[in-house]
Amino acid sequence: MALNGEIDAIATAPIHKEAAQLAGYNDIGHMELLQKLSGAKEVATMLTAGNLRVVHLTTHRSLAKAVEFVKRENVLAKIELTYNSFKEWGFSDPRIAVAALNPHGGDGGLIGREEIEEIVPAVNDALALGINVTGPIPADSVFPQAINDNYDVVVVLYHDQGHIPIKVKDFEGSISINLGFPFTRTSVDHGTAFDIAGKGIADATGMIKTLEATAFIANTGNLPAE
Amino acid sequence: MALNGEIDAIATAPIHKEAAQLAGYNDIGHMELLQKLSGAKEVATMLTAGNLRVVHLTTHRSLAKAVEFVKRENVLAKIELTYNSFKEWGFSDPRIAVAALNPHGGDGGLIGREEIEEIVPAVNDALALGINVTGPIPADSVFPQAINDNYDVVVVLYHDQGHIPIKVKDFEGSISINLGFPFTRTSVDHGTAFDIAGKGIADATGMIKTLEATAFIANTGNLPAE
Repeated sequence: MALNGEIDAIATAPIHKEAAQLAGYNDIGHMELLQKLSGAKEVATMLTAGNLRVVHLTTHRSLAKAVEFVKRENVLAKIELTYNSFKEWGFSDPRIAVAALNPHGGDGGLIGREEIEEIVPAVNDALALGINVTGPIPADSVFPQAINDNYDVVVVLYHDQGHIPIKVKDFEGSISINLGFPFTRTSVDHGTAFDIAGKGIADATGMIKTLEATAFIANTGNLPAE
Repeated sequence: MALNGEIDAIATAPIHKEAAQLAGYNDIGHMELLQKLSGAKEVATMLTAGNLRVVHLTTHRSLAKAVEFVKRENVLAKIELTYNSFKEWGFSDPRIAVAALNPHGGDGGLIGREEIEEIVPAVNDALALGINVTGPIPADSVFPQAINDNYDVVVVLYHDQGHIPIKVKDFEGSISINLGFPFTRTSVDHGTAFDIAGKGIADATGMIKTLEATAFIANTGNLPAE
């Protein structure tokens, strides 16, 4: 229906990945499933909490495998996707930051060389394409800077690098918006919480905020300001 | 002087690791240098920002090497050090959480097996020693829970896993306190900022808070409450 234009957007509730896999679905999550169904080439998960927005290089990989994915061409592809998506969402010159992978951004190569060998070259490639991008910036500095409105969005290199600051900033109100699909796709940013099912104590704030944001994007073509 | 009891505590200002190494000091930071000088066996860096406290399994390692260090015996040693330190600081039954390494805590082994093979066994070892410890808890959940006062301290598995939530919660006021030395050792939780040296715009809040906390610990033997 979304591909046929019958609906403008898809907002999904939580999925339990282990249960889905037990049921015979081998895609790790909604995004991977929708990517297969839509044929979208380059997609990404963005989380937002107020003015803090993070786009993930990878999400559902072990941390060891996420580190291996930090390659010049992969980082560049995600910067370009972020740039194109934010342009579509009405940002005339999106201010993009890229987080570093290693402590202190590798400290000049002393504690990790991915910054020197992969991330800096990717940022330089993006700058050469005319993209307003800064980084790599140490991960303990870049989020306070973004909250201080220095950037519109931070490209993060692994799941928890993006999820930790978002959840500390706003545990209940964060939402997930995909980049790269030919339709709007959002999701709540929490799990199934089977442990409290049926107890009448679940908090619907996340789902409500997600639906409101989805309607806003579908109606205006812009991201919600806050 | 600290080892001789002539002074009660050491509070250090920032060090520039690359410059120190260029000057012939091969230890990566103050903590490693003090460890060598004092002969302390097991030490750790704790950051605090209000009621959020994180103890790092490792700090100055590349992320790839930090992942390799997530071994049962290493995690257990850090839980024990945390327990002993908090007991000394007056917590009668310290509530310790351990963060997971992989997204969603590995999702039952689908995206990473360190939780199953290393962290859960370490937590069980600690429980068997009578330590009040919970985990592994997904890293995007454990910090909001700690801020909600579910735990006294979170053991984190790599530098940025601890630094990101601390800096998002309180960018200027966080302080660093070592565990495991035979004297109190604290540090500001920021870098040298050579880029603003001599401009008269540096903010001394971190150094002031560090000195106040150091005096409090040295005088009372307890951690500052907030």
